[in-house]
Amino acid sequence: MSEIIEVKAGIEAENEKYAAEVRKLLRHHQTRLINLMASPGAGKTSLLEQTIDGLKGAYRIAVLEADVDADVDARRIEAHGAKAVQVHTGGSCHMDASMTLQALQMLNLDDYDLVFLENVGNLVCPAEFDTGADLKVMILSVPEGDDKPLKYPLMFKVTDCILVNKIDTDEIFDFDLQKLEKNVASLNENARIIPISAFTGSGVENWIVYLREKLMAWNYSCH
Amino acid sequence: MSEIIEVKAGIEAENEKYAAEVRKLLRHHQTRLINLMASPGAGKTSLLEQTIDGLKGAYRIAVLEADVDADVDARRIEAHGAKAVQVHTGGSCHMDASMTLQALQMLNLDDYDLVFLENVGNLVCPAEFDTGADLKVMILSVPEGDDKPLKYPLMFKVTDCILVNKIDTDEIFDFDLQKLEKNVASLNENARIIPISAFTGSGVENWIVYLREKLMAWNYSCH
Repeated sequence: MSEIIEVKAGIEAENEKYAAEVRKLLRHHQTRLINLMASPGAGKTSLLEQTIDGLKGAYRIAVLEADVDADVDARRIEAHGAKAVQVHTGGSCHMDASMTLQALQMLNLDDYDLVFLENVGNLVCPAEFDTGADLKVMILSVPEGDDKPLKYPLMFKVTDCILVNKIDTDEIFDFDLQKLEKNVASLNENARIIPISAFTGSGVENWIVYLREKLMAWNYSCH
Repeated sequence: MSEIIEVKAGIEAENEKYAAEVRKLLRHHQTRLINLMASPGAGKTSLLEQTIDGLKGAYRIAVLEADVDADVDARRIEAHGAKAVQVHTGGSCHMDASMTLQALQMLNLDDYDLVFLENVGNLVCPAEFDTGADLKVMILSVPEGDDKPLKYPLMFKVTDCILVNKIDTDEIFDFDLQKLEKNVASLNENARIIPISAFTGSGVENWIVYLREKLMAWNYSCH
């Protein structure tokens, strides 16, 4: 059985104060936090399974599985040998910094180099809240369509990296990667776009390389 | 160019008061309102295009296209000969009853028998707000997975009808319709489940029959 924690939203106006506390806590323990955001069913948990396998042995990983309900994702993560905490958001459609702090405090952070926050499946609200994470990554899955940046611009503006998942189905869904890249570039010139299939494994190695480079660059001892 | 209206959220505690106003307005004009909810990219606009074609000549239809941004959906709807109003939610992840009232007031309701509210793409927040609609319909698309009722239970509890879209891709995504039906039944015994493909048109006639039956049963002259 994975652990389950019920968290409560903080005061919205004080979110930045909590985000600073998250960053301080992470720095103290030399742990990095990645905020993973996507629509329901885009493949967040499948990507994390592949990522845990890809980094195995090199980094000690924990996952905060934020959901309105259920603990199916936490069980999937633990089957891959990483620590998982199921975080119930009490109906909230996103994780804020206060909720993230409550969840991180469930972990002995000295035991982990890297924590993934699997945010609630939603392209609107999670984009609005700084959680104190070092990196924001989103998954857009091919069946959702290449026009999504036009409809959920804030998410595409704030993210550092966009994983285009289920790329093996691009022909079935008439998905145009170049059109997506153009739509993203109009909002965010710096976002890295990596096509992957968490199902076939195709492209996942490019994501692992990107992540390893980030982890190497984030050398806490320099600070 | 489709019309664009910017709406503002009402006070949450007063949502039921606004929902009652929506119902009163609809009754006065003998117009029906359907709240259509789904994740981003599940196929809401494609379904509406097929629905407008399927009801053409029998009912006068308008669509409220709620989005955080953009007006691509409204233009698609108008190309099918229905009236469309693009509703910008000012960053809100859902439509509440006050916002729905503001949007409906943009229409001359005597000209329409049926209004669809295409809600913001999100499985969490739209489920929490009564908009005053006569019917709640959600789309779950096959690539999202058959486990979604476990993770977004409120949406599956409140909905009257679940359209399982992109059913032509069920084998690719290993989607088990019976498993979905079981997951839904544990939350909502009365929800009607209709598998469709808004892309191939398969199953859409079952949805049109369901909708026509609802429209016939809602005979305002009986009240």
